[in-house]
Amino acid sequence: MGLELYLDLLSQPCRAVYIFAKKNRIPFELRTVDLREGQHLSDAFAQVNPLQKVPVLKDGDFVLTESVAILLYLARKYKVPDHWYPQDPQACARVDEYLAWQHTALRRNCLRALWHKVMLPVFLGELVSPETLAATLAELDMALQFLQDKAFLTGPHISLADLVSCLHHAPVFKGRPKLAAWRQRVEAAVGEALFQEAHEVILKAKDSQPADPTLKQKMLPKVLAMIQ
Amino acid sequence: MGLELYLDLLSQPCRAVYIFAKKNRIPFELRTVDLREGQHLSDAFAQVNPLQKVPVLKDGDFVLTESVAILLYLARKYKVPDHWYPQDPQACARVDEYLAWQHTALRRNCLRALWHKVMLPVFLGELVSPETLAATLAELDMALQFLQDKAFLTGPHISLADLVSCLHHAPVFKGRPKLAAWRQRVEAAVGEALFQEAHEVILKAKDSQPADPTLKQKMLPKVLAMIQ
Ligand SMILES: N[C@@H](CCC(=O)N[C@@H](CS)C(=O)NCC(=O)O)C(=O)O
Ligand SMILES: N[C@@H](CCC(=O)N[C@@H](CS)C(=O)NCC(=O)O)C(=O)O
Repeated sequence: MGLELYLDLLSQPCRAVYIFAKKNRIPFELRTVDLREGQHLSDAFAQVNPLQKVPVLKDGDFVLTESVAILLYLARKYKVPDHWYPQDPQACARVDEYLAWQHTALRRNCLRALWHKVMLPVFLGELVSPETLAATLAELDMALQFLQDKAFLTGPHISLADLVSCLHHAPVFKGRPKLAAWRQRVEAAVGEALFQEAHEVILKAKDSQPADPTLKQKMLPKVLAMIQ
Repeated sequence: MGLELYLDLLSQPCRAVYIFAKKNRIPFELRTVDLREGQHLSDAFAQVNPLQKVPVLKDGDFVLTESVAILLYLARKYKVPDHWYPQDPQACARVDEYLAWQHTALRRNCLRALWHKVMLPVFLGELVSPETLAATLAELDMALQFLQDKAFLTGPHISLADLVSCLHHAPVFKGRPKLAAWRQRVEAAVGEALFQEAHEVILKAKDSQPADPTLKQKMLPKVLAMIQ
C-alpha cells in the first residue's frame, strides 16, 4: 500500500498537508474523513487514529498524526525543494520557531474564529454572543501583529510556515494590506488553481447543513473542548 | 560572543533547554531572566525578545525563541547523540509528532496546573476555586492517558520529547506507577545531579514571596492570558 492521507479540507492543518503534497507531486491516496458527518468518530477511523483527529498519514504500517510532523516527514522523504524546510541551520530554525509558535499563538485563535463565526452558529446551531466573537477576533488580531515584515513568514521564499497559517480567514485580511499581500504571494507560489481547489470546502462552510441532533450531541462537547 | 541562553528555571521549556545544553556539554553563558521579578518585562529584555518570553537563544547576532526550535538548533549545530533527534525518518517523525502534540494537548494543562495550584495563590495572591483546580487536574489527567507504553515517550531511548514534557509535576505521578517509572528513567538518563539542579527552582516555587502590588498588576493580565 502506498501513501494514504486522511483529510477533511475543512480543516486548516489538512489543507496544509494537501497543498504541500499536491504541489510537490507526492503521490497519495486521499481518504476523506468528513468531519461534519462525524466520520472521525467512527470505529473504522479510531483504528487509524485513536485520537480521532485529522490529518493522519499512513505509509504502509507507519501511522503519523500532527500536521507539522506529517509535513516534515514528507519534506524529508520526498526531497522537496530546499525553501520549504531549508538546510541552512538559521533559516531552518526560523521555520521551526514559527511552527512551534503558531500552535499556541495563532492556531487556537484561528480555530476559535472559524467556530465562533461560522461553524457553531451554522452547523451546530449554537449562537455565539457578539462579545465573544469580538473578543476572539481581537485576540487573533493581537497574534497577527507579530507576523513579520518579510515576503514570506520566515524569509524570502515560501516555507512550511506559510502553509500551516490560517490563510483563508477573509475577515483577517480586511484593513491589513500587508497580510493580504502575503496571502497573494502564497497563492501565487502554490499556484492559483491548487490554492482555490484546497479552499473550496472552507469557503462553502457558511452554507453547511445543520448537524442532525444525535451528531450534534456527540460533537458539541468535543468542539467546545477543542476551541476552549 | 559565544552562545547565550536566557532562561528562568521556573519555566518548563527553559528547563528542557538547560538540561539539554548541560547534558551535551554545549558551552553557553547563562542569562537568568527572573520571571518573578518581572525581568522579562524590562526594556533590556524586550530588546532581546519583543514577545517578552523565555527561553531565548542568542548565537552572535542570531536570536531564536521557542524551546522546540532552540532544542533542534542546538541538536543540529552540536551534533549530539542520535537518540535525541534520530536520523531514521520514522523515529524522527515520532519525535516531531510528540513535539507538535504537546504544545496544545499537554503544555497548556501543565501550565495551568502549575499556576492554578501554586503560582496564582502563592505568588500573585489570587485564590483559585477548588472546582477550577479539580477541572485543570482532570484535563491534565486526560492528556496523560495518551502517553504511550514505551521506555521513553517516543521509543526505546531518551529524545527531545522526554525533555519538553512536564517532568516535575509531583501530583501527576501519584497513582500512576508507569508515569513515575518513566520519570525515573528520564532522571537516570539525564543524570541525577543535573536533573535535581534543573528542578531546584520549581521545587521551591511554593515558597515564593508574594509579588509586590505594582508587579502583580503588571503580571496578572499576562498570566491569565497565558493560561486561559
Ligand atoms: N495539532 C493537530 C490538530 C488536529 C486537529 O485538531 N484536527 C481537527 C480538525 S482542524 C479535528 O480533527 N478535530 C476533530 C475533533 O477534535 O473532534 C494538527 O496540527 O494536526
Ligand atoms: N512556546 C514557548 C513558550 C514560552 C513561554 O510561554 N514562556 C513563559 C514561561 S514558561 C514566559 O516567558 N512567560 C512570560 C509571559 O508570558 O509573560 C516555548 O516553548 O518556548
